[in-house]
Amino acid sequence: MAESAVKGDAYPSSHGPQPGAAHACLRVLLFVSTLISVVVAVTSKQTVSVTVAGIPFPVPLPAKFTQSPAFIYLVAAMSVACLYSLITALAALTFVAKKPVSRARSLLFLLISDAVMLALVASATGTAGGVGYIAWKGNRHAGWTKICNVYETFCHHVAGFLGVSLFAGLVLLVLVSLSAHSFHGCIPK
Amino acid sequence: MAESAVKGDAYPSSHGPQPGAAHACLRVLLFVSTLISVVVAVTSKQTVSVTVAGIPFPVPLPAKFTQSPAFIYLVAAMSVACLYSLITALAALTFVAKKPVSRARSLLFLLISDAVMLALVASATGTAGGVGYIAWKGNRHAGWTKICNVYETFCHHVAGFLGVSLFAGLVLLVLVSLSAHSFHGCIPK
Repeated sequence: MAESAVKGDAYPSSHGPQPGAAHACLRVLLFVSTLISVVVAVTSKQTVSVTVAGIPFPVPLPAKFTQSPAFIYLVAAMSVACLYSLITALAALTFVAKKPVSRARSLLFLLISDAVMLALVASATGTAGGVGYIAWKGNRHAGWTKICNVYETFCHHVAGFLGVSLFAGLVLLVLVSLSAHSFHGCIPK
Repeated sequence: MAESAVKGDAYPSSHGPQPGAAHACLRVLLFVSTLISVVVAVTSKQTVSVTVAGIPFPVPLPAKFTQSPAFIYLVAAMSVACLYSLITALAALTFVAKKPVSRARSLLFLLISDAVMLALVASATGTAGGVGYIAWKGNRHAGWTKICNVYETFCHHVAGFLGVSLFAGLVLLVLVSLSAHSFHGCIPK
């Protein structure tokens, strides 16, 4: 009986709820949130005229995401997650047409790759968040002054892409839980 | 047949490999790595005598993890992960004695909670890593000077707990993959 269950012959393709639609929706949500995060990050440039000691006129000093490796890492990670969400959304849409065994294999593969993507997005959000916090509050012990009182628009963008990245991480966590929940009732090896 | 499989009557408790031992080993590894990370972080204090303008004698300036919210977050997250690994290592050891259906439920619960813990550890490592990078390299655009040339021992500790935290994240990723792999051959709902 175990063998026939593994082969999937005993299960009609319409057995139980299909995870395809929910997966596809969540992956579209992931695609939108990661895309917004990247767009908000790359458009975060702000130039401020600052008075520098020794120079009689104000000097224009720009702030942009490329000046911080943490923000570059976030943009790279979100771009990868964006592309990943697009590919897997299309893959999830094919779930319905698949045989139960193939669907099970795809779900397991997606579960593990979603977990990898979750780690990537969470670490990138954390990295950018740590640097964003210093920009917002500074650190008097290390002698790092806050810059958000000068670069307000830039910091609003940082807060924006951090919030959307956090949301993308939560979507990935829901996706992992959803894939895992699909195996509820299964007997593991 | 599907019903009997779900009830677990058709499967003897010795069916296939038992994930208990591998889970318990990995969770012990997670416990050790998170504990090391916390210990290295809380013992990272270093005091350096610095010459300050206007004061004729060197002033002792300490550097410790409590001076950075990012490092406090890492210690908190690793402490949670440490406690979690201890509880779940004991839970994993009871796998062998469990019926297949109960084992399946436990595995699913552990899979989802491991994913939550993975997100926590990855984000904390990222946050501390972002701040550690500034301490190591500085950021001339933001006017943040590096401090690792002064606080060498402190920065060695930072590099140490970052490395061990990264390892803990990888262990959690393996745990999620291992739990997922246990369902290989199962037919999802």
